[in-house]
Order: sequence, then C-alpha cells, then structure tokens
Amino acid sequence: MDFSSKLLENAVYEMSQLPGIGKRTALRLVLHLLKQSDQRTENLATSLLDLKEKVRFCANCHNISDTELCEICANSKRDASLVCVVEDIRDVMAIENTGQFRGMYHVLGGKISPMEGIGPQELTISSLVNKVKKGEIKELIFALSSTMEGDTTNFYIYKQIEDQEVSTSTIARGIAVGDELEYADEVTLGRSILNRIPFEGSLKSS
Amino acid sequence: MDFSSKLLENAVYEMSQLPGIGKRTALRLVLHLLKQSDQRTENLATSLLDLKEKVRFCANCHNISDTELCEICANSKRDASLVCVVEDIRDVMAIENTGQFRGMYHVLGGKISPMEGIGPQELTISSLVNKVKKGEIKELIFALSSTMEGDTTNFYIYKQIEDQEVSTSTIARGIAVGDELEYADEVTLGRSILNRIPFEGSLKSS
Repeated sequence: MDFSSKLLENAVYEMSQLPGIGKRTALRLVLHLLKQSDQRTENLATSLLDLKEKVRFCANCHNISDTELCEICANSKRDASLVCVVEDIRDVMAIENTGQFRGMYHVLGGKISPMEGIGPQELTISSLVNKVKKGEIKELIFALSSTMEGDTTNFYIYKQIEDQEVSTSTIARGIAVGDELEYADEVTLGRSILNRIPFEGSLKSS
Repeated sequence: MDFSSKLLENAVYEMSQLPGIGKRTALRLVLHLLKQSDQRTENLATSLLDLKEKVRFCANCHNISDTELCEICANSKRDASLVCVVEDIRDVMAIENTGQFRGMYHVLGGKISPMEGIGPQELTISSLVNKVKKGEIKELIFALSSTMEGDTTNFYIYKQIEDQEVSTSTIARGIAVGDELEYADEVTLGRSILNRIPFEGSLKSS
C-alpha cells in the first residue's frame, strides 16, 4: 500500500502489529480515529500507556490487579485449598462467569512452548510449586487448553509436585452441552465416552 | 465482563470504541500489548497522537498529506483537467493501485447523510465547486459508492455545477471481471445490460 503521508503510514503500521489486524483493518481504524475528536485518540493512547506503566500483578495468583492482592485472593470466603491453574486472565474471567467455582486461581501467564521461546522460567510455575510445597493446597485443577503445549505444561508441573501431598485433576473434556453427537470431532467424542460419569453425577450440573 | 483491574477495564473500554472491535477482541489486543515490550505500546500510542496532532490535508484535493500539496497534486505529469471525486483516502489508494488513472482527485471526506448528521457543510463540496467555477476542470468523474447517500451527494454536487462548462461521468457499474452472471445481483446485472458498451470498446481494458 502506498500512503500519501508518512504519519499515516506509521500509525497504520503500528496498529497492524496487533494480532488479527491486517493493514486494511488498521487503515480503517486509524481513519476512524482521525474523524473522531482529539479526546478520543488521547484517551485511547493514555489508557494503553497507563496500563503498561502502572499494571500490577496479584502477589498470590499473578492475575492482573490494581492492589497487592487481587479481589479473589483477598476474599476470605473463597477456598484457598482449591487452586485452578489457568493460562491467562481471560480464563479466570471465563470461569468466574460460570459462578461454579469458589476456589482460587493461579495464572501461569502462558504455556510452555519451545517454538515461541517460552520456557518454564517465563511462566509463574516456580511460584506455584512453592505454594504447593507449603502444604496449604489440597487440590490443583489443571484448566489449560488441551493442546500439545498445554499438556506439556500440565506434565511439567505435575512432575515437580508429584511427591507432594496434593491431589490433581483436570477439567472434563467432552461434548458441549446442547451439541449434537454427530457433529462432534472424534477425539472429543472418544474422550467423552472414556471419561463417562455416573448418571446421578450428571444431575448435579446447574 | 468483570475485570480484576480498573486500568485494564479502561484500556479495554477505549479499545472497544474502535469500529468492529468488540469487548472480547479489545481484551485480546490489550493483553497482547501487555505481553510485548513497553516500546511497542509507546510506539502505537505516539504514532496515533502524532498523526492526530500533526496531520495535514492537501490544499487542493484534501487528501491526507505531509506537505502543502500532496504528491499527486504536485505531480505536473498528471492531468489536472480530469478530476475524480471520491469519499476518502482509501478510495484514492484503491484507484491509484489500478494504475489506470492519470488525472487528479478530490476527496470529499464522506457522503451527505442526514441520518449521521453529515450535511454538505461537513464535506469539501464548496471547495470542489470553486475549482469547477475557475474553469480549469474539463471532466468530473463521480466515484462515490452507489448507495442512497452516494447518489444524493452526486446529485447535490451536480446541481451546483450544472450551469458550468464541465462534463460529468460516473464510474461504470456492472459484473466484476471474472464473475459468473448467475451469481450477480439483479440490480447490477440490470445496469450492466442497460449500460452496455460497444464490443470494440471492451477490448481497451488492460
């Protein structure tokens, strides 16, 4: 694309560095901002810079937080002995939205992925292992995505804590509620049969 | 969505004000920026603020430009007597990419749209009419989108210059090159038959 202005080209380039935003979309977004009031662009720029500069992470679960301890970790009504291990804050939000979980979280910040240069050191795994070694956690629930990277991360953590007194589980994989069997992929359908649960157990779900 | 941090919520809100970006996408983009270096966010914020602050428009065609006259208007090899009227800079880029047009442009900055509160005063119509009245333009090519707003804008401009010595045309509407007739919509197919061109003329196209 040939731009008539270097300033415009620059803004479009920076915008198109965001994931899933191509050059055309970036141009559309930038031209939209140009038509809006100065305040709008300023607000966007300031909010991003502010976040980047002042962001803090909860000292316990590593979730993004404005305070030393996040709201969930600071909530004494939640069960600190039950910890759900997730990749990032979006997973925390998704599980919180279900209203089914009253334990705490541990946000890893990603998955082990040699391809992307992410090793265990880049994640908050040692902090999790330390928490487990203190003996305050009764059960760890692995809720990482079921990809090779997710499985690797689960296994890496499991290996470090297998001699500790903590039980481990992973969230159930199976056919989504409301889905037709015929459209499910084979791996998911296969797992849902292997990991079947007693019929009375299925009545628990809300 | 419940956010664990006000800073994060703020950034996601501002990002989701962009067109076509919902809350979920905004969250994904913001979390991506958080994982990148500080420099990346700073570059994005600065480029947007810079553009908004320093942007200039070509004195002749109103295209975005870093100089008093844009490259196209300053190019003496281009035909200043042939002017293509377009909505915004994206249309200029699209037509320039074809390499078929050696005239100049006039960027209106939008279409007349009472629904969105855009009247003729918000656009660069009076500047176009003034140019026509100077008598330097031989032909105006209307290349606005063929919507009600586009047609209204064409007609509004036409009414203001009909007593001037300038010929007007609109770009051809018809079946796209390579498209099958059976999948074309009726209006387009109908127009392409009404506005048929002599067979020898069709051989000109590159």
